[in-house]
Amino acid sequence: MILTVTPHPAIDLTWHLGTLERGGSHRVQPGASRAGGKGINVARVLHSTGYPVLALTTAGGETGEELRADLAASGIPHEVLGVAASTRRSVAIVETDAAETSILNEHGPALLPGESTALELAAGRRARDADTVVLSGSLPPGFGPERLGALVATLVALAPVIVDTSGPGLLAAASAGAHVLKPNREELAAATGLTDPLDGAHSLLSLGARLVVVSLGAEGLLVVTRDHAPLHARLAAALRGNPTGAGDAAVAAIAVSLAAGDDLWSSSPAGSDARALLARRATAWSAAAVLMPLAGEVDPRHAVLMDDVMITEVEEDTR
Amino acid sequence: MILTVTPHPAIDLTWHLGTLERGGSHRVQPGASRAGGKGINVARVLHSTGYPVLALTTAGGETGEELRADLAASGIPHEVLGVAASTRRSVAIVETDAAETSILNEHGPALLPGESTALELAAGRRARDADTVVLSGSLPPGFGPERLGALVATLVALAPVIVDTSGPGLLAAASAGAHVLKPNREELAAATGLTDPLDGAHSLLSLGARLVVVSLGAEGLLVVTRDHAPLHARLAAALRGNPTGAGDAAVAAIAVSLAAGDDLWSSSPAGSDARALLARRATAWSAAAVLMPLAGEVDPRHAVLMDDVMITEVEEDTR
Repeated sequence: MILTVTPHPAIDLTWHLGTLERGGSHRVQPGASRAGGKGINVARVLHSTGYPVLALTTAGGETGEELRADLAASGIPHEVLGVAASTRRSVAIVETDAAETSILNEHGPALLPGESTALELAAGRRARDADTVVLSGSLPPGFGPERLGALVATLVALAPVIVDTSGPGLLAAASAGAHVLKPNREELAAATGLTDPLDGAHSLLSLGARLVVVSLGAEGLLVVTRDHAPLHARLAAALRGNPTGAGDAAVAAIAVSLAAGDDLWSSSPAGSDARALLARRATAWSAAAVLMPLAGEVDPRHAVLMDDVMITEVEEDTR
Repeated sequence: MILTVTPHPAIDLTWHLGTLERGGSHRVQPGASRAGGKGINVARVLHSTGYPVLALTTAGGETGEELRADLAASGIPHEVLGVAASTRRSVAIVETDAAETSILNEHGPALLPGESTALELAAGRRARDADTVVLSGSLPPGFGPERLGALVATLVALAPVIVDTSGPGLLAAASAGAHVLKPNREELAAATGLTDPLDGAHSLLSLGARLVVVSLGAEGLLVVTRDHAPLHARLAAALRGNPTGAGDAAVAAIAVSLAAGDDLWSSSPAGSDARALLARRATAWSAAAVLMPLAGEVDPRHAVLMDDVMITEVEEDTR
C-alpha cells in the first residue's frame, strides 16, 4: 500500500470554456467539484491504475463535507481527520481554445497544534503498513517546515518517503533524509537559490536527500542522484492539454518504483535499469495527465507513451 | 410582503484578486459562497433594508443543499422547492486593481414538467399575500417563455408584477401585461431588435407592459411609460466597484414603489412624483450595490445617494 499524506487539501473546482475574456460574462457547462490537493491527486492516479493506496488528509466545514463525500464516492481508501477550519477551495479555469489554465488557490486555514499532532500520529501509524509514503503539497499555517522535517525523519525509518513541496519545506525534507524529492524547476530555484536545476538538485542531495526528480514541464524531467550521471527523460513532442496534476502523476509513478523495492541507488546494472524505468514511467504518466481534463487522472495511453520517452545521460562536465 | 420568484437559482461563488492573469496561478483569500440568482439577490436587498419579503425558488443536489443552508443562515424568509437536478453554480472573479469582473454562469439543469407546475402553483399561492411579485433571472430549460407568460398573466390579477429577464421571456412577460419590466440596454436591444432604448421600451409597452425601466450601467437608467415623457436618472459621477447585482438592487427599489401602492401610471402631480421617486431610488440603490463586494448587498449610503441623483425628462422628439 502507498500512503499519501495531504496536509493542505482543497476542494478543486474546474471549469472549461473556449476563451476567458477578462471582464466578460461566459456561459459554461457545469464545473467539476472534487477532493483535491496534491497528495489526493497522487492517490487518485494510483487508485485508477489499480495500485493499493490510502489517502490521509484533513477536512473541515461545508467544503470539508464536500471533500469527504467526493472521497467516499471515488472509492479511494482514505482516512480523513476532522479539523475546525473550513477546507479551502482551488479553482481552475481551463481555456480549450488557448490551452491556458488560470488557477485561483485560496489561502488555507491554519491547523491547530492538536490537529497537526493528530495528523503526524496518524501518518506514523499508517506508515507502518505502507510500502512507500508520499507527502505532497503546500504546508498549511500551523504545520511549518520544522514539523514537516520532524515527520519525514520519523517516517524514513518506516518506509521510503517521497516529498513534493516547495519553499523551506523542501529544504527541511532534504535535511531529514527524504528518499525522493520532486520539485519543479521554479520551485527548486526558489528554494535553493540556484538557477541551474542540476546544481539545485545536488544541493538537495548534499543536504540529505537520496534522489531528486526535477520536473521541467514540456521538456520532461531530470533524475539526479549523488553517484550517477543524471538522466534527462522527455517525449519527442510535447503534448497539449491541462498541465494541472502532471507533477502529481509523476510522483505517483515514482512511488510505484519505490514501493516495488527497486534499488534506485545501486551502481549495478539493475540500479541503472531501475532509475531509467522510474524516469520513463514518471515522464509517461506526467504526459498522460496533461491529456486529461482534471488533475488526478491519467490517460490510459500512459502505457504506450512509455515507449516514446527518450532518455539521455546528462554529461555534467560539459553542461 | 414582496414575493420574489427565482426559477433558475445558483450558488454564487465570488473571489477577489488584484489582477487576473490568464494562464497564471493566483493566491487568493477564501471566496464567498452564497445563494444566488437574480430573484434571491432582490430578496436579499429588500431583507437588508428591513422590507418584508419571501424568496421562492428551487434547489437540488449538493449545491442545492448549500443554497438551502445559506438561505437559512441569511434569515431571509423563503420557500425552497426540491428538484431532481443539481443547482447550478455562478462564478465571479473580481479584479480589484482593474475594476473588471469576469463571470462564469453554468448552464442550468432542466426543470421536470411536474417541477415547473409546482413552482407555478407555489407562486400563485404565495402571491395572494403579496403586495408585489418579482420574477427575476434567466429561465431554466423546461420553464420556457410560454410558461413565464402564462404565470405572469395569472399573477397580474393578484398583485403588481415586475419581471427582470431577457430574450423571448421578456417579450412574453410584456404580452402578458407585466406591470414593470427591467431589461438592461443590451437585453432590450437583443429582445426587441431595436438599438435605441426608448424605441425598445415603447415596443414592450405596446405589447402590454405598463412601465419599462432600462438600466444603462454607469449612465443610470430610463423610466418609460406610454403616456408621459421618459425620465433619465443618473448620478453625476459613476461609482467604481462590482457591478454584479446592480440591476437586482434597482429591481428591489422598484418593487418598494409598487408595494407602496404608488400610482405610477397617473398623469396627476402625484403620479409624476411617484415616477421620479422610483427613478431616484432605483438609481441610488443600483449605485449602492456597485459599492459592495457581493451581489445582493447595498451600501447603506443608498439613502444619501438619493440626493445625488439627477433626473431629466427626455424630449422624445429631439432625440
